[in-house]
Parts: sequence; structure tokens; C-alpha cells
Amino acid sequence: MLHRVRSAVAHLVSSGGPPGSGSSVLPTPASPNPIAHPVAPRSPPAGAERGTRASGGAVENRGSFSRPTFLQLSPRGLRRAEDHAGRVVQSPPDTGRRLPWRTGYAEVINAGKSRHNEDQACCEVVYVESRQARMGGPGKSISDQGNQGLYFHYWGLFDGHAGGGAAEMASRLLHRHIREQLRGLVEILQDPSPPPLCLPSTTEASVSLELSCPGGSQPCWPLQKEDEHMAREQRNQYAVGGCCALVAVYLLGKMYVANAGDSRAIIVRNGDIIPMSREFTPETERQRLQLLGFLKPELLGNEFTHLEFPRRVQPKELGQRMLYRDQSMTGWAYKKIELQDLRFPLVCGEGKKARVMATIGVTRGLGDHNLKVSSSTLPVKPFLSCFPEVQVYDLTQYEHCPDDVLILGTDGLWDVSSDKDVADTVDKVLSSFEPNDPSRYTALAQTLVLGARGISREQGWRLPNNKMGSGDDISVFVIPLGGAGSYT
Amino acid sequence: MLHRVRSAVAHLVSSGGPPGSGSSVLPTPASPNPIAHPVAPRSPPAGAERGTRASGGAVENRGSFSRPTFLQLSPRGLRRAEDHAGRVVQSPPDTGRRLPWRTGYAEVINAGKSRHNEDQACCEVVYVESRQARMGGPGKSISDQGNQGLYFHYWGLFDGHAGGGAAEMASRLLHRHIREQLRGLVEILQDPSPPPLCLPSTTEASVSLELSCPGGSQPCWPLQKEDEHMAREQRNQYAVGGCCALVAVYLLGKMYVANAGDSRAIIVRNGDIIPMSREFTPETERQRLQLLGFLKPELLGNEFTHLEFPRRVQPKELGQRMLYRDQSMTGWAYKKIELQDLRFPLVCGEGKKARVMATIGVTRGLGDHNLKVSSSTLPVKPFLSCFPEVQVYDLTQYEHCPDDVLILGTDGLWDVSSDKDVADTVDKVLSSFEPNDPSRYTALAQTLVLGARGISREQGWRLPNNKMGSGDDISVFVIPLGGAGSYT
Repeated sequence: MLHRVRSAVAHLVSSGGPPGSGSSVLPTPASPNPIAHPVAPRSPPAGAERGTRASGGAVENRGSFSRPTFLQLSPRGLRRAEDHAGRVVQSPPDTGRRLPWRTGYAEVINAGKSRHNEDQACCEVVYVESRQARMGGPGKSISDQGNQGLYFHYWGLFDGHAGGGAAEMASRLLHRHIREQLRGLVEILQDPSPPPLCLPSTTEASVSLELSCPGGSQPCWPLQKEDEHMAREQRNQYAVGGCCALVAVYLLGKMYVANAGDSRAIIVRNGDIIPMSREFTPETERQRLQLLGFLKPELLGNEFTHLEFPRRVQPKELGQRMLYRDQSMTGWAYKKIELQDLRFPLVCGEGKKARVMATIGVTRGLGDHNLKVSSSTLPVKPFLSCFPEVQVYDLTQYEHCPDDVLILGTDGLWDVSSDKDVADTVDKVLSSFEPNDPSRYTALAQTLVLGARGISREQGWRLPNNKMGSGDDISVFVIPLGGAGSYT
Repeated sequence: MLHRVRSAVAHLVSSGGPPGSGSSVLPTPASPNPIAHPVAPRSPPAGAERGTRASGGAVENRGSFSRPTFLQLSPRGLRRAEDHAGRVVQSPPDTGRRLPWRTGYAEVINAGKSRHNEDQACCEVVYVESRQARMGGPGKSISDQGNQGLYFHYWGLFDGHAGGGAAEMASRLLHRHIREQLRGLVEILQDPSPPPLCLPSTTEASVSLELSCPGGSQPCWPLQKEDEHMAREQRNQYAVGGCCALVAVYLLGKMYVANAGDSRAIIVRNGDIIPMSREFTPETERQRLQLLGFLKPELLGNEFTHLEFPRRVQPKELGQRMLYRDQSMTGWAYKKIELQDLRFPLVCGEGKKARVMATIGVTRGLGDHNLKVSSSTLPVKPFLSCFPEVQVYDLTQYEHCPDDVLILGTDGLWDVSSDKDVADTVDKVLSSFEPNDPSRYTALAQTLVLGARGISREQGWRLPNNKMGSGDDISVFVIPLGGAGSYT
């Protein structure tokens, strides 16, 4: 049963929450939400004045762009952050309020592959008021209810594609979805006894909120809610594109890391590397994608085959036998080539060039509801999943030192840096700072970003070994797991 | 590319073979098959005279039963082997031809749960003639063709349910399917250069064989072929029931272990345990089963829900919230109970009591084509898979000593013995024999079976610690990996 508590929380904070416990409608300013931690507005879109943004669920206009609030960028700073030629590494200013836990952060824009930096980031401490307390109405104080809420710490990296809208929307809203979903579990999480198998039915007010959930009785996890929210916006042509999501949530002694996409998280602890996520790409998810294509061939139209071949089949090879693999195979075997094998393979290519339906290189994330196969009306979305994989790390099981960190990075970091490279940099940078120097984690994040970007030479961005640096957007959180930081 | 060779072979010998490389019709006595290793006829059905059995693809009449040929049982011995009260452990006789590699084998019948011993076993050395050589016709000798065939060693355990027909059929025929599928790869396997991505189209004769394959162009792996063969027999009410299959194939320096069901294989090497299979049960395959039920709800009728709950939902709990999990979740969360949640869960129960559709406790294997949900016309088969998982062990990468063994056992062994128990017994028994004593592996198999069966007491079969012994059929192969045996 203890396992059930843990796993229920894992779903709540990342891949799932109690489906009947929240509203699909985000709290508006009119909602009774007297003590919820205020979610800071983001940096304004370039050219707009501070404070004119709509709050809550409002969606960025197309063409505008912004960077995380905690960077505290002025309009001029914002323009510099979007300079593809200089690629200046951005971090929160040394002055003023630091990120929770002294978290380090750094980012840099791509070398020109897209107009804006399509990565987005969020770091918040979020207060979850219990639903029971909340239902007492705005006239009653917490003490009247006798219910204490709880806090969670939240870090999110969102790597956008085909526009920055989805990543921006997710970075503004996902932690709110998590908060909403957690409300129904506040009492259960704080109760040391095992959670009940069955809970009494909720009151009228709560039920009516549930009824407003699209899909009615279907489970609505935070990422799923965010994805459905995005689907509604994308029907209106807002928040175009999609994004990968890598999220860490610290709650009651445990760190939950949820990943949907090709970002990556590792813990570096006493020099050891502990993987905290795995990537979801056409290569790693081939069998899931092929199974779906096999069970639902209508999703492939007449354009694709769910089989994979080591290279494109030629019409002249009809009747010959070629290596192939299907949804049930981890290896290859021969099959006789037939007419339908000439269709384009659902999954093709290797490494960074691997694609689903010749279109997209990641297989999990948010958005992409309007994404169509090139020169076709076939939607790609059914093959993309918004369900993350969650890993749980119990911080109470180990005494962490100030050099133990959780690293979150978008693929811009990992395309050119191995886990080992990153662990070496962690050691090198942190050992050059005093353990209680509050700037050490930001310095580490900057070094990691610089190390992946490289320096500008005639032939482009190059690493010290003269290999290509990453031309992608690069974003890194460095989250200290022990030492000076206090986790309250 | 080397990986492709390995994996192609893995498919060929166990989960797959080149789909266009074989006939779905097994060779009949009239087929030109001049040098194929003769497959010994099995022990006769009880009451029948030796030699009256039809050979090749003929199927046991219902009600008859047999034990593996290599046990060399007389009609009287056969009756003793089926005695539920005495449960005498059976092994090949000490006199006469030993099993290849000095393989040890022992079995015992169940304590009364079914009339016959529904486990079956097979151990063979099989010669694979290349297709090219074969197509030269029976008039030409091998040397005329210049093609050498190859041998593989084969061990199979088949744990039947709902009758012994499927297990018996599989034990007689599966290695022949593997042989047929391997024919097309003989030259490629013997050629040290990488296999070609594309092979020339096969000749007329071979193509016509392929056309006789049910499903036409669909891949036909050996287990799949066996399963399709069984489907045809089961339509005629022969070979009722189903069976788990655990198969080891030694070919060109590598051991391929393929498992579909809840039998288990481990290697014990220098005291270390190397798992060579994992079990496929409603618990381990919950997410695969739930995904299929979610994508193809018509397979559930109006009788089942693809969701899992920790216990059966009561009508009075409608509107309350209960812990549950679906195909995307590894943990549990709460959902509001609705009318359709009152349906019986597709997967329910724990441990040995876990069931798919309240009917069957294993999720992979052969047969079960006629299996229906109790008091319903709903077929269970779509949820059962005949695809095994294959593990490959390279025997050339380690110098094995005579005490290093591969253990194959049906669940009767593993229900009461842990991997560690078995490894301890391996150490204890083998160290009490000379390394070159040919009877040591049979003695080990007998000790393992006896240790799982226990001894008969007033309260039933009991282990030395007074826990219940296994009342199931128990079958064990002990395959030595080094030492005196030669692998030719």
C-alpha cells in the first residue's frame, strides 16, 4: 500500500493526478484562491510594456516572444537574449532574489535554426490549498477549517518546436495544473496512515467542476490537461507547435522527475551518475509506434507502412527479400518485398535524423495538435504521447553534500555532452567554489551551457576539440540536493 | 550490421524466421528431405501399440497421453509416470544413449490438479539442410551442390493447460518449424561477411511454397507458425488447450533462449545467477493487455473494463472515488466510479491468482484458440501473444567449467524455489560428483524436482520447512555449458 501512495503521488505531480479531483478550467482571478502562491507574470513580449499581459490562461499572440520571468530581462536584455550571432549566455542576475534552493540556471539561444529561443523554463514554489479548505469559501480563513495546505517545489524545461507557443504556454500553466490536481490529495498526503482504496463521493461544487472536464470521466493528468488545453488553443490557431516537457517536483521528501520528450535529467552524487529520465524518440519508441500503426492502420492512410526497413525500398526490389522489423521484433529478419512495403516507413532514420512519418523527431510532449504530414492531410498527433515517464528519488535515503546536484537539460546540452562530460564539469566547477557560495550553481549551469555552445569561429560554433558545438537552444537547471539549501 | 546478424538469428531460431523462407506446410514423408536429422517418434499413447502413430504433422487423439521419447518408458512405466499418488520422479534411464551435451532431465506429475502430466519436453540435435541444396532435388547429393548444412541443439519445455494437446503438439513440431525457417539462412549464417540488406528473389519452387503460407505475405515465425498450425487443428477440436513454451537453441557458438509464458530459464555460472528469461503473466503484462483493450474496446464486449482496481467495484460505490490504474500508469491514482467501472476488470488478482478476463493466468504461449470467457462467447485469444522474448548468450565469451549450467524449468519448479535456492542446489549437487561423471546433471535435475515436489505427508506434499510443495507438474532441464561435453 505504501507503494500505492508513492505511485499515486508520482502520477499526481507529473504524469497523473486524480482524474476526478480537479477542474479543467484553470482558476481565474475571480476564483476563491486567497493564499495560493502567486504565480509571477512572465517577462513581457518584446515591444510590449510590462504589466499589460493578460494573466491566467491567456495565450501569447503569435509572433511575440518572451523569456522566463526569473531572468528579469529588460526589453533591451530581451533583445540581446535573442541575438543569434552573439549567443550570450543568460542567467538570473546576481542581485536580488535567488531561485529556490539556490538553483542555478543558464540558457542560450540557437545559432539561427529558429527565429526565437524555443526553449522555455519555469521555477516556482507552489502552495497547494486543500480542496476542503477551499470549499469553505473565501469568507473563511484556513484556521477556521483546520486544514493545512502543502508546498511543492517545481522546475520545468520545455523545448519547443515549430514555434515557441506550446513551450511558452506549458511553462506558464503546467505547475498550475499540477496544483489543481494535488488539491484533492492534500489530506491524504499529510496523513501517515495508508490511503483508503475508496474515497467518499465529492460534494456538489466539486462534482460540477469535474463535469466541466473535457472527456467527462476520462482521467485527466496534468500533462494531459495541459495538452487538452493546448488542443483547444490550437484549434484557434494560438500556441502553435509543440514542446518536450521535463519537470522536477519536490514534495514531502521526494523528488519526482517526469519526462516527455528528448530532454534529459541526471543526478550527480558523489561523482556517480544516476539517470533520472530516458529520451522518447522514434528510435526508442519504435515498437510502441509500430504497434499503434499495426492495430490502427487507418492512422497510416495509404501513405505509410508500420514496418521498418534498413533503407527505403525501391520498386525494382519487389519480390526480393529485405531485412525488416515490426512491432514484435527487437532484431531484424528478411521478408519478401511487396507492393505495400514501398510505402514510406512510419519510423525511419537514425539518431537525430530519426523521424515519425518523416515529420517529427520526438515522440512525446505537448501540443502538435495541428501537425500534419508534409503534403498530406494525415495528422501526426495520434502517434505522439503526452504521457511522461516518472522517476522518483527519495532525498531522505542519502545524506547529500553541497556538490550533489540534479541536472536538467534540453537536448541542446546532451547532443554534444555525455553524462560523463557533465559529471566531470560538475566536479571541476563546484570544487572551485566555496560550498556555501550561493553563485556556484549558476556558475555551473553557465559552464555547462558554454561547454555545449562552444565558441564562434570562422567555421561556426566549435568546441575546444574542434567538433561542432550545439547550434540548438540550450537550457540547463542545476538543482542542489544538499548542503546550505533548506527544503522548506 | 553484426547486430543484425545476431538479431536475425534470434528471430529465426525462436521468435522469428524469414517470413518468406519457409513453407507453412510441414514436410510430409513424401517431401524430399533425404538427410534431415530423423525426428524420433514419441512414446506411444497409453494403451496404443508402439509404431502405430502417424508421423509428421499428425495430432494426438483427445484423451490419449504420452511422455517424452527420451524417457524410453514402457507402457507400464508410462502408467507409473502418471500416478498422482506416488509422484515418482522420471528421468532418462542410466543405460543407453544419453541426451546431447549430457543434458540432465527430470519430471514429476502433478498432485491431482489434472488427469495427465500436461508438461512436455523435447531435446534434439537437428540438422538444417540449406534450401539451395534441397532444391537440387533428391537425386543430387550434398557434395554435388557444394553446400554444407548446419546443426542446432534444441531443448524445449511446454507447460500445457486445459488439456495436454497443445503442449504435446508443440513438443513434437516446434523444432521442425525452426528447422524449416532456418533453411533459407544456412549460407548467410555460414558466411563471415555481413548479411546483405536485400536478397535476390527466390526461385519459383520456393515462391510457391510461400504462397501456401496462411496470411500470405505476413511474417511467419516458428512459434507463430506453430500457433497457426494449432489454430487449424483446434478448429477441428484437436489439440485442445494451450501451452507455455520455453526453448533453448544452441547455434554457432550462441545459446538463444526464447520464452512465451511463465516457465523460467537461468544460467548458474561460477555461483552467479544470470536470468535468461522473464515471465509473462497478467501482472507483468498488464499494460500491454490494457493498451490492447483500450485501442480495441470491441475485444472486451460489454463485459470487461480495461481499467484495473485494487478490488472489485461495488454498485453502491458509484460516484465515490477509487484507486485505479490504466495502460499508461505504473502507479495508482483515484478516479470517480462510473457505471462502466462496474464491469469485470480485464486484469485482476495477484500472484498465481492473477487472471486475464477472469480466465487464464499466462499471457503468452501457443494454442488457446477455442478459449472463451466463462459463460460468454468472448474469445480470450486476442490478448494472448505467441511472441516470445529472446535472450542471447554467447558461449564463446567465457570459459565455462563443468559446474556452469543453464536451467530450464516449468513454473512447478519456480513456484516454490527461488533462483537462489536453485543456484545453491546446483552448487551442492554438482560438487558432490566428479566433474566428468556423466550422471551428475540428471542427478541435479532430479534433486531440483524433488526439492520442489517435497514429500508426501498427511497434510499433502510438504517441503522440509513444512511449507507446501508444488502440486503442479514439474519439469527441469539441466544443460551443462562447459567441461566434458563437446558442442558439435
